[in-house]
Amino acid sequence: MFTIENALIATPDDYSSTKVLITDGRIAGISSQLDTVGTSINADNKLLLPGFVNAHTHSSEMWQRGIMSMFPLELWLAELYDFAPLDIEKVYLSALGTAVETLLSGGTTVVDHLVLIPGKELETIATAVRAYKEVGIRAFVAPLIQDESLAAGIPSGDTKQTHEPYFRSTQATLDIIEEAVKKFHCPEKGINIAVAPTGIQLCSDALFKGCAELSDKYDLCRHSHLLETKAQEKLAKEKYGCTAVEHLERIGYLDYRTSLAHCVHLTDKDIAILAHTKSTVVHNPLSNLRLGSGIAPILKYRQAGVNVSFGCDGASSNDSQDLLEAIKIGSIVHNVTDFDYQHWITPHQSVKMAALGGATGLNMADNNGSLDVGKKADLVLYDLTSLSLLPRTDPIGLLVLGRPVNVVDSAWVNGKQIVKSGNVTTIDVQDLRQELLKHSQWQKSRKSKTAAELEKHYRFVMGL
Amino acid sequence: MFTIENALIATPDDYSSTKVLITDGRIAGISSQLDTVGTSINADNKLLLPGFVNAHTHSSEMWQRGIMSMFPLELWLAELYDFAPLDIEKVYLSALGTAVETLLSGGTTVVDHLVLIPGKELETIATAVRAYKEVGIRAFVAPLIQDESLAAGIPSGDTKQTHEPYFRSTQATLDIIEEAVKKFHCPEKGINIAVAPTGIQLCSDALFKGCAELSDKYDLCRHSHLLETKAQEKLAKEKYGCTAVEHLERIGYLDYRTSLAHCVHLTDKDIAILAHTKSTVVHNPLSNLRLGSGIAPILKYRQAGVNVSFGCDGASSNDSQDLLEAIKIGSIVHNVTDFDYQHWITPHQSVKMAALGGATGLNMADNNGSLDVGKKADLVLYDLTSLSLLPRTDPIGLLVLGRPVNVVDSAWVNGKQIVKSGNVTTIDVQDLRQELLKHSQWQKSRKSKTAAELEKHYRFVMGL
Repeated sequence: MFTIENALIATPDDYSSTKVLITDGRIAGISSQLDTVGTSINADNKLLLPGFVNAHTHSSEMWQRGIMSMFPLELWLAELYDFAPLDIEKVYLSALGTAVETLLSGGTTVVDHLVLIPGKELETIATAVRAYKEVGIRAFVAPLIQDESLAAGIPSGDTKQTHEPYFRSTQATLDIIEEAVKKFHCPEKGINIAVAPTGIQLCSDALFKGCAELSDKYDLCRHSHLLETKAQEKLAKEKYGCTAVEHLERIGYLDYRTSLAHCVHLTDKDIAILAHTKSTVVHNPLSNLRLGSGIAPILKYRQAGVNVSFGCDGASSNDSQDLLEAIKIGSIVHNVTDFDYQHWITPHQSVKMAALGGATGLNMADNNGSLDVGKKADLVLYDLTSLSLLPRTDPIGLLVLGRPVNVVDSAWVNGKQIVKSGNVTTIDVQDLRQELLKHSQWQKSRKSKTAAELEKHYRFVMGL
Repeated sequence: MFTIENALIATPDDYSSTKVLITDGRIAGISSQLDTVGTSINADNKLLLPGFVNAHTHSSEMWQRGIMSMFPLELWLAELYDFAPLDIEKVYLSALGTAVETLLSGGTTVVDHLVLIPGKELETIATAVRAYKEVGIRAFVAPLIQDESLAAGIPSGDTKQTHEPYFRSTQATLDIIEEAVKKFHCPEKGINIAVAPTGIQLCSDALFKGCAELSDKYDLCRHSHLLETKAQEKLAKEKYGCTAVEHLERIGYLDYRTSLAHCVHLTDKDIAILAHTKSTVVHNPLSNLRLGSGIAPILKYRQAGVNVSFGCDGASSNDSQDLLEAIKIGSIVHNVTDFDYQHWITPHQSVKMAALGGATGLNMADNNGSLDVGKKADLVLYDLTSLSLLPRTDPIGLLVLGRPVNVVDSAWVNGKQIVKSGNVTTIDVQDLRQELLKHSQWQKSRKSKTAAELEKHYRFVMGL
């Protein structure tokens, strides 16, 4: 039980300083008239916001950030897998790193579309769960699954292509997920398992349907990549004879628990489908730029009433887990796609998308995503005396449109404080830095054999 | 005289650890075989790069960052000027702030397109010069001048518009600049005055020609905004019957000392003119997104051999002075404009644009912009053990594509150390924060009267 005192909070037309009382992990009162109960937390010159959601990432990509070639997704993926000698220790460290960077940029929830080590699938999941529990961040671990091989993800065009069968059957894959749910899914403790087929490019209908069944059986969130690239748009046409969204709706994958990463290449009809199925778009602006995927039509989604949240995407395609950066760029990048400034996203709308939009996409908006009495205390307190947030103007404008540095003073998840005075209190970040340093080497040039093999076909099919 | 030991530097195919000897403000040697001379600086786990150039900003905009409406440039400017009650003290503080944020994000040179307080023009310039001297950053103070009133900057379309005459004559304006040159221009001490008409939208030919004459007489750099918005493209057609670039070439404003901010709306012929006049494009990607100006065709400039550098632009349209952010976004944003990834900018190219490209645009490439023996010691040492740059991969890739936080360990300008162990050594940044806090207030809503007056005409002319 504690009281945050003198915190600046946004009111409809202004800001006010108030007290916020937290009991049993929830917001019990918000008013300057409250008595101080329990520990008093001094929030002078600090802004209180609901925690944001890093709604799409792949934690283990942290091991290759900074070094991936300037490639579009399909070739980039080939390079990523050529140099991904993952082990359990690395999975653990990069999950810690992802949690810490997310926390220190305003996120209190992370959705980890987790790459699994073949043969050690459950151990990989267990390791990520352990890391997130240790840090104390709210986590949705969404094991990345597929039942087709990498080359199947590139359109064939007029060529004849055959792909190696995937090494594991659809049912065996679904069994792993069900076991993970039984072992680790525990929403009340902040750890959730989500079903998360990679995307239409590498997954059969049977896999999507099996995931939807698990979702219904255990009330799990559904996640997937969707139409990130032009190649995928082309592939969907080849594979289904319709758009990927039309197909996913037909096979029953889309509902209010479904969040879809990227959504760059959708038709107006697709957008209407997302709206009426209450699916959520996870906007990953930085990876969409870095990989040249395109600018997702977020202004259209908002106009159509589709819920939108923000993700950093994996750190190899970004190459960071700074959620505030994703929110800034993901807000202003659309101003060049629609010349009418009356449609542009304001900083106050961005914050709502990052918090309540994120919670809605994870089917937890009843309990999270805003400063309302009764909601869970997933909260972040920002230090407004950081040079990067001065001089004083509109705190939320500074936070969203500026480049905040060292601004997260405190963070709580489920009412438990896990950042204090700018430092993570649950794990030793200096120690984490030492471990990341020890497990890595500086390097400059590398060549991906698989990317080189795929490149000629890719250029041909994409008309380059 | 000092020796930086064990610094990581980029070689053509890799990185190597080496010693760098600095004497008399210049790089005197680069080799692991050198003897240590003078003070020894330990650069273990640190990357050494030439300092970058923040090639376009307006320091006093810092006072309105975070609060400006989501407006296109023309309306945004109206709001900016409605709420700009500048005084000399504020000019001083925001120049300090701009210098510090630039330094702590890798910049050792700043180009301040400085807004002048009417009636206190020379005092404004003197104040900015004082601030930059105190911090020790290399500065190009480019007083922002015009000889037409704000409303002249919006195309008339089919309407009849008249504008108030500007309050000061062209010659009086040029006289101020010449006096500033005589008083403050001192390249060897790191302070330069540049001629800098606002842009074609608010300046007569006489002003441009007068500036070119001053540039020839005193060997000054020439600066200006150029074709930032569609409205300006339209206006140039109305005003000149040709493009702005064709007109500026005709009146003799373009040469190897000319740097032009934005350059979003240029024709292929315009690009060829920039190439053969050896003019420099200053890329301000963040303000171009925030104001919806567009994505400058930087890949085309590079292919045409036009020199390109990076700027943060004023902090009201960005809303930060983080140069590394401008470099990142200004590099990856083009990947969505050209689908062929072979044209995309690599991190190593970005660093060259930010350092050597910046120096070239300021006619100082002979002495700055790269790690070469004989060049001035404008250097930055990055701490590669920051969590944001771990795990270790390609240091330059991490720096450019990541979201570096607290990474500038040391910086030198002219061989003088002005950042040490992550802290600015020349001024008291805590004190600066206090002053910025003291001189400002949190606020949320405001309404610009002038923007409201201009809006109807703007929407009509721009077809909104």
